[in-house]
Amino acid sequence: MTIGNFSNPIDQRYFEDYVPGSVHEFGEIRVEEDEIIRFARRFDPQVFHTDPEAAKQSVYGGLIASGWHSASLMMRLFVDHYLSHVASLGSPGVDELRWLKPVRPGDALSLRITVAETKRSRSKPDRGLVRSDVEAMNQNGEVVMTMKALNFIRCRNVP
Amino acid sequence: MTIGNFSNPIDQRYFEDYVPGSVHEFGEIRVEEDEIIRFARRFDPQVFHTDPEAAKQSVYGGLIASGWHSASLMMRLFVDHYLSHVASLGSPGVDELRWLKPVRPGDALSLRITVAETKRSRSKPDRGLVRSDVEAMNQNGEVVMTMKALNFIRCRNVP
Repeated sequence: MTIGNFSNPIDQRYFEDYVPGSVHEFGEIRVEEDEIIRFARRFDPQVFHTDPEAAKQSVYGGLIASGWHSASLMMRLFVDHYLSHVASLGSPGVDELRWLKPVRPGDALSLRITVAETKRSRSKPDRGLVRSDVEAMNQNGEVVMTMKALNFIRCRNVP
Repeated sequence: MTIGNFSNPIDQRYFEDYVPGSVHEFGEIRVEEDEIIRFARRFDPQVFHTDPEAAKQSVYGGLIASGWHSASLMMRLFVDHYLSHVASLGSPGVDELRWLKPVRPGDALSLRITVAETKRSRSKPDRGLVRSDVEAMNQNGEVVMTMKALNFIRCRNVP
């Protein structure tokens, strides 16, 4: 599913196409139990991420995905559907990453992104900074995670 | 390597052991090229993360780790050395995640964490919130990534 008003497809998308106030929705991506466990064994070995049985005794009452796994799944949707494939110049970081609700095996995540602000660089006039408010929803429409993303994007029209 | 002044080992560590102003250093963890590529193919398929040859033509001049991969490696060190193994009650999120320098194949990351603030919960007196300023360094001592982590930790002494 893709809802949005980008005037150009992702392989012809530049800084000018990210319009403040525009809202873009897309997804989904599935969260599988075996990937939750594999990811957590390597990167976040807490029992509520690695052991379905022990997780039942935890505060979460069952296995949940590492927050970094959820963020990484969100990134996959961000790259597949939102971030230009020809003009992305990397990211300086992310603000206010929030894990609001557990992400569990079998969940399907989708994204709603609002372009919050765009600012053309004065020192490097071939690019600009795009601030995006990102919400990740599960299959029940509950917002499970939010973040404010920062991305440098090359401009189509350079003075 | 572990430097720090925790008064208790990680499996006997509670909210009271996180002392504001204390500094803790530990690591390392290696960043391998095959893991960079495998992680990025699944979660962040941009060419400078997935294709060593194409990455040479990118702004980074070579393959670099996804920022989410770097953050996940940081989490592994955080869980192995810093976060209590008996009293962790999860995290509401992270502030000001910043990717300051590229992380490349062969790099070895370590962490320096300063306990920034601790606040006992008034509504749930069995726990408190710990704010930690986290810096990830490479083998040359360069700070490659920073974040402000938030963690709920159970108290040893409950009134």
